[in-house]
Amino acid sequence: MSEYWSANVRRLIPYTPGEQPETRDVIKLNTNENPYGPSSRALAAIRAEANENLRLYPNPDGAPLKSAIARFHKLAVSQVFVGNGSDEVLAHSFHGLLKHDDPILFPDITYSFYPVYCALYEIAFDAVPLRADFEIDLDDYVRENGGIILANPNAPTGRALPLCAIETLLARNAGSVVVVDEAYVAFGAESAVNLIDRYDNLLVVQTLSKSHGLAGLRVGFALGNPSLIEALERIKNSFNSYPLDRLAITGAAAAIEDREHFEETRRKVIATRERLISRLEELDFDVLPSAANFVFTTHRTHSAAALAQALRDRAILVRHFDRPRTDNYLRITVGTDDEIDALIDTLGQILA
Amino acid sequence: MSEYWSANVRRLIPYTPGEQPETRDVIKLNTNENPYGPSSRALAAIRAEANENLRLYPNPDGAPLKSAIARFHKLAVSQVFVGNGSDEVLAHSFHGLLKHDDPILFPDITYSFYPVYCALYEIAFDAVPLRADFEIDLDDYVRENGGIILANPNAPTGRALPLCAIETLLARNAGSVVVVDEAYVAFGAESAVNLIDRYDNLLVVQTLSKSHGLAGLRVGFALGNPSLIEALERIKNSFNSYPLDRLAITGAAAAIEDREHFEETRRKVIATRERLISRLEELDFDVLPSAANFVFTTHRTHSAAALAQALRDRAILVRHFDRPRTDNYLRITVGTDDEIDALIDTLGQILA
Repeated sequence: MSEYWSANVRRLIPYTPGEQPETRDVIKLNTNENPYGPSSRALAAIRAEANENLRLYPNPDGAPLKSAIARFHKLAVSQVFVGNGSDEVLAHSFHGLLKHDDPILFPDITYSFYPVYCALYEIAFDAVPLRADFEIDLDDYVRENGGIILANPNAPTGRALPLCAIETLLARNAGSVVVVDEAYVAFGAESAVNLIDRYDNLLVVQTLSKSHGLAGLRVGFALGNPSLIEALERIKNSFNSYPLDRLAITGAAAAIEDREHFEETRRKVIATRERLISRLEELDFDVLPSAANFVFTTHRTHSAAALAQALRDRAILVRHFDRPRTDNYLRITVGTDDEIDALIDTLGQILA
Repeated sequence: MSEYWSANVRRLIPYTPGEQPETRDVIKLNTNENPYGPSSRALAAIRAEANENLRLYPNPDGAPLKSAIARFHKLAVSQVFVGNGSDEVLAHSFHGLLKHDDPILFPDITYSFYPVYCALYEIAFDAVPLRADFEIDLDDYVRENGGIILANPNAPTGRALPLCAIETLLARNAGSVVVVDEAYVAFGAESAVNLIDRYDNLLVVQTLSKSHGLAGLRVGFALGNPSLIEALERIKNSFNSYPLDRLAITGAAAAIEDREHFEETRRKVIATRERLISRLEELDFDVLPSAANFVFTTHRTHSAAALAQALRDRAILVRHFDRPRTDNYLRITVGTDDEIDALIDTLGQILA
């Protein structure tokens, strides 16, 4: 604490990201990275771009990347915003579209960065309790609000809402923005992108971190009505003219254009997830239905905290959130089949 | 304009960056890029890092880069903050250290992003007029304030303050933070870094964009007392856990470690700047003293706007700011000797 800090800094409780160990000797199932890595075409594009032209500023609009995203999603470029990871895109969305007099709404159990953004930008919010089974009850969102943000599938639960539920929410809530955070949508949920042309109040946020195996490149984007995109551009251009570097623009565009790699890796992740769920259930875990590249699970007799520690002692990292309602759950990333086999074997030994 | 925008978005007047033409057929002297490009060691490090590990999140603290910067500047790692370009670092500094009840102070002619940050974060400011010769009068800064930010050397003037003047300002202003934006310091001004251990209220901001020929990689940093750095970390960790991607962390660290390339290229830029100034004076330009990699100049008989347009018509870009007091000046980046020869020849033809 210092006299020099702005008043708001004193009140912030920053987000804590999952651990990134320096060693390679762990099985890392704690931060929902894609086990298969990026497209080789993306890597080749990045290497080619690592040249003398790095002396020049990037395209301030990330134009080649916006074009690739617009083609992929069959949208106009004016419906696309790009940023330095979906965290930055979400931050600008909170600042530019969700800061109003009425509190915004999101579930009590969701991406724990949302209340942090609210503190950063001094936005009032109500955390709406999920039902006991961690499902969203849409009726809880029918009330005055400054905006709504939902992760679909939700994190850390993995549960997805069907598209008809998102559409109901958009129609009932025409007066404020509904942000659908689709960080994990590639692994089985229905995207709301096709609703953009019908609902001016819909902003869809996606990221290449998980779906394209590019967590290390930091590229996210938002899709929506051009007027919502313009609000984000105004914030971005008042914050950092060039949030995406030359390598990220080029690499991300190449990754998006490699649809085959995207389809193949997400199919593999989904197949491994279903195997993981069956094997966990054989070990007396209850597992929530998952449309993501992770599962959220609780054991019938062993505490989640103790299991997380026992796994860590055996060089396997999973995520444990020491928070009300979820403190007896583990969030486990879907790794390769070999990693999942090692996890299940180790859990078998711990539980024996 | 949209009902969905947060109130503040309506009031923003975003920063306008210099043009980044897609064509290579122009001589680009408009955005102060380094003509010599980055260290070959940085490029090799980036190419080596473009591998499967891009599937993993980066080190959230940018630790390898912080270490390289700390070694270069002989500081502790706790005195270093890193960000996605110095624009992001400046934004967090405004938000976390310069937002108080009293207005902050900066010159009326300086980096035009400063008032934009103030609008973004709703910070009151007083723009303090420079003297008629575009020098800063320190006595103008002896008054209640919420903080002070000075670019040294200043942009777009190129004028530098001596270190003793910065120290006087720090001593007179112990109650609030003084940010010294040293984006151009490598080209001849005295850095305030050595004052950090004596002044808790000093934050020095630097960038690799110009000094290391890496505008396209987006890496900037701040140096100061650990308590000031902690404020920036709290903002950063409430905004984006991983602002620097794996390629930027690795490439920037390698660039900083290549001191020879840094020293050689800055010497060349300084030598070319002195040639440029002499040749402009031969063509009846008045040129302000410059400690930067650009010059700020006005012609005795020809209008700056007309000259900028005439140069553009001949495929040479320079920057013209259509603003009070500076609308008859051109800001010209120091390019290679060949680029400067072409500029001078072309100006000779235009003025003939």
